Amino acid sequence: MGSAFLNYASTVKLRELARDPIDLSQPDVLTPERVNTYAVQAAGLNFLYATERVTVPVMTALAELAEESGALEKMERMQAGDVVNFIAGYASEKRPALHTACRDLFDAHRKEPAAAEAAALAKQEVAKLTRFIERLEQEKQFTDLIVIGIGGSDLGPRAHYQALLYLLQPERSVHFIANVDPDDASQVLSLVPDLKKTLVAVISKSGTTLETAVNEKMVRSWFEKAGLDSRSHFVAVTTPRTPMDDPDRYREVFHLWDWVGGRFSTTSMCGGLPLAFAFGISIWMDFLEGAHEMDRLALESSIKTNLPLLAALLSIWNRNFLGYATQAIIPYSQALARYPAHIQQVEMESNGKRVEQSGSFVDFETGPIIWGEPGTNAQHSFFQLLHQGTTRVPLCMIGFRYSQRGEDLEMGGTSSQEKLLANLFAQAIALAAGQKNENPNRFFPGNCPSHLILAERLNPRTLGKILSFFEHKVAFQGFIWGINSFDQEGVQLGKLLAARILTCFENPLHSTYPLGEAYIDQLHM
Amino acid sequence: MGSAFLNYASTVKLRELARDPIDLSQPDVLTPERVNTYAVQAAGLNFLYATERVTVPVMTALAELAEESGALEKMERMQAGDVVNFIAGYASEKRPALHTACRDLFDAHRKEPAAAEAAALAKQEVAKLTRFIERLEQEKQFTDLIVIGIGGSDLGPRAHYQALLYLLQPERSVHFIANVDPDDASQVLSLVPDLKKTLVAVISKSGTTLETAVNEKMVRSWFEKAGLDSRSHFVAVTTPRTPMDDPDRYREVFHLWDWVGGRFSTTSMCGGLPLAFAFGISIWMDFLEGAHEMDRLALESSIKTNLPLLAALLSIWNRNFLGYATQAIIPYSQALARYPAHIQQVEMESNGKRVEQSGSFVDFETGPIIWGEPGTNAQHSFFQLLHQGTTRVPLCMIGFRYSQRGEDLEMGGTSSQEKLLANLFAQAIALAAGQKNENPNRFFPGNCPSHLILAERLNPRTLGKILSFFEHKVAFQGFIWGINSFDQEGVQLGKLLAARILTCFENPLHSTYPLGEAYIDQLHM
Repeated sequence: MGSAFLNYASTVKLRELARDPIDLSQPDVLTPERVNTYAVQAAGLNFLYATERVTVPVMTALAELAEESGALEKMERMQAGDVVNFIAGYASEKRPALHTACRDLFDAHRKEPAAAEAAALAKQEVAKLTRFIERLEQEKQFTDLIVIGIGGSDLGPRAHYQALLYLLQPERSVHFIANVDPDDASQVLSLVPDLKKTLVAVISKSGTTLETAVNEKMVRSWFEKAGLDSRSHFVAVTTPRTPMDDPDRYREVFHLWDWVGGRFSTTSMCGGLPLAFAFGISIWMDFLEGAHEMDRLALESSIKTNLPLLAALLSIWNRNFLGYATQAIIPYSQALARYPAHIQQVEMESNGKRVEQSGSFVDFETGPIIWGEPGTNAQHSFFQLLHQGTTRVPLCMIGFRYSQRGEDLEMGGTSSQEKLLANLFAQAIALAAGQKNENPNRFFPGNCPSHLILAERLNPRTLGKILSFFEHKVAFQGFIWGINSFDQEGVQLGKLLAARILTCFENPLHSTYPLGEAYIDQLHM
Repeated sequence: MGSAFLNYASTVKLRELARDPIDLSQPDVLTPERVNTYAVQAAGLNFLYATERVTVPVMTALAELAEESGALEKMERMQAGDVVNFIAGYASEKRPALHTACRDLFDAHRKEPAAAEAAALAKQEVAKLTRFIERLEQEKQFTDLIVIGIGGSDLGPRAHYQALLYLLQPERSVHFIANVDPDDASQVLSLVPDLKKTLVAVISKSGTTLETAVNEKMVRSWFEKAGLDSRSHFVAVTTPRTPMDDPDRYREVFHLWDWVGGRFSTTSMCGGLPLAFAFGISIWMDFLEGAHEMDRLALESSIKTNLPLLAALLSIWNRNFLGYATQAIIPYSQALARYPAHIQQVEMESNGKRVEQSGSFVDFETGPIIWGEPGTNAQHSFFQLLHQGTTRVPLCMIGFRYSQRGEDLEMGGTSSQEKLLANLFAQAIALAAGQKNENPNRFFPGNCPSHLILAERLNPRTLGKILSFFEHKVAFQGFIWGINSFDQEGVQLGKLLAARILTCFENPLHSTYPLGEAYIDQLHM
């Protein structure tokens, strides 16, 4: 029988259409008319997909796939607070995925009890954060914040901090420690000018993350050595009742809840504390409002406005029907340099799965490998392979009409921002259309698919929309495939074996794990 | 007839062996004995590959492949200065690839005229750099260096600067500007404390890179606004006789040559100037000596000591015979956080090709997609997909017995460095061996291949070895496939189209490129 996904009438149709996809390298295929036809606009974002290998029949079948798989109802249920994180018939997390509640603070959109209750809790934390930031502003003690966290408690806050650096308040700076590698913490210590003026945020949803506990202990030791009372410098972000939910050790404890997945926690206090410290509360609220606007857009039924659904369908077309195993995210914006690393986690940890929610193994490909670097830098690095390699890589490119800081310079009749945009457009065209040449080494096959997301300017509100766009794109893909995008059982085995190997380090003479010993012995060769 | 690569006796054998590769997830396959058997040591590096899906017959056939393809002779010819960068019968660059000459400064290893002459030129530049750095030390004017460059003039210097930050000299700091995005330069300006104390290195092999020229102009304008004479603050690194080879505009011009490819230019003055400014000349020389040591190792005939050749063969096994399209580089060292981005360029720009040196199109897969992030961070990000996704990803993991800075802390009976190493080993085992479980969501299929590179400590000499290891691994892959790893024709088309789109920005009313216009119009929607 096999997977539901493979048996939809639309998937059968799509498989048929994929046998002979449109050839974008033919003359007069990629035209101005095509650019205008395959373009939609919503929430202030332009989504251009003329350079995807789609046609009207493909888009029709994709829309049918969304319908047959019940993608929209599942999104509705997710935002309503239903238990969407489960595997039927087996032990699993069995809980809602309500990160959208963290930003349902503006029009009390959701009325369902689970969602409304979650939003009320989130609102309380925002109020607590507001008071906390106000107090810091009055006290004027702290200039630096060290954030200790890993994975979802690190990548999101870090990428968003970097994205909005142009709004950094005077005499404020944020530093991040994630790795259990002791050099990570040491390096950060060398950058912090004065521990007396330094606040430390320890972020761990479970309150027991090994790396975070180790780094917290190391950073506390610096404060002790400096004769400072660490409690008055340390704050925590964790779930209620974890070991870290302890006012004796932290001057303030902020909460998130089990219904916010780590990789979806940027709009919880995991992101709220560092970003409000850096940029102030009102910028944080703008960011949340942008995310909420996209949350609502993700409920719209038409793929002419529901951008995350449209993007999810295009990804599935590329992944399951055209057979491309990866997707590169290329922001044409240096401020988004670390954004691909964040989305890499959001997508790969969510959809790197092999089990359907029904409990059976999938018999199709799920989440692709997500990777990328900012343009134009990437053009001078790995774009050679995109143009002339043997593996096709679909791209998601992101661009902005105006720069963030407004400092620019004309040279040769155009500004730097125009040069940046010209490169963005040129790459989309070159990758899709390719070029004939008698010299085989100057031949470009084309047909490398891409879509472009364009916005006016990368400000907090736009950034919130972009975050929510990716979060929902990933969720839609999971809904359509019928997998659970909200757990991460795959990280457990490595933790278990690392603990066993640690016993070998502890008791080299009484080890009970010969395989671990064999590796440790290699260190002494 | 087809490609030479597909017709070797060894490739036929390898295809046969790949039908039924070893199943590492079976009990008693991954044993301490296997760990010890599939381990070699050379130049102070331990290379462990028990978790690759290889057996003795596979390794024998791979060694035959190296021989049949003449990989070693080609490496010998490359280091001797023969013209290895060419496509037969077509216009091509037709020159040597002599980056190894940049570090043949210690034992005058190469006697062939081309190589010896190149080494003599490189030696002159090192002497010039030494005098320059000495003068800076006497003058005590400069604390900060801004490096302007992109691609090979950026990623290598930046990754290596970060890798050795623990050796940063007091009152020295380096900042990098690459992107034509004007926010990149503006952001760096906000970090530089005092332009009077700031030196600027403009790095462009061609002397005409658009991004670099634009950023140079912007940075010069800051100096002019500050009333400073920019010539006395600016130095250049370029090829002789380019527009940038101009002492009227730069207080010093350092040279590289057309036989050093951009992505292979870290050991030329592209890396030399920034790294010697940051760390001093003697550290720079240690780094070069490490690279040279690995250059010599790359000439050894046995894959028991020739680590780059061994790694190239394993990559080809994974790519062409087991069919894995990507490889992730995971350094268990925060100092190497940007190393995967550098190797991404080295490998993808070199081997992202579809034409053999004979001039015919390949009919097999060439360079894989290279990506990665440091561990343990990555474990909390995308490792879920590696353990339980549907796409297999071979890994190259790198670890060190000791940390760089030596600051560490015991917790639960082990140090942070031990926890880091325990995780490294645990992941290799977990990914290969997997785990059975009745709950399908807790089932790990295993058979995800990896190899580990272990060294004592990440110091300049070891870093030089690691760089040269990757450079030669990439070259060996190209030699075996029979492609030209040293050109990059694929970047030209995008440049051409970007120039056409710029004319649309310049003359919106008289544009001759309707497709470019169509994209620009989307900015105004």
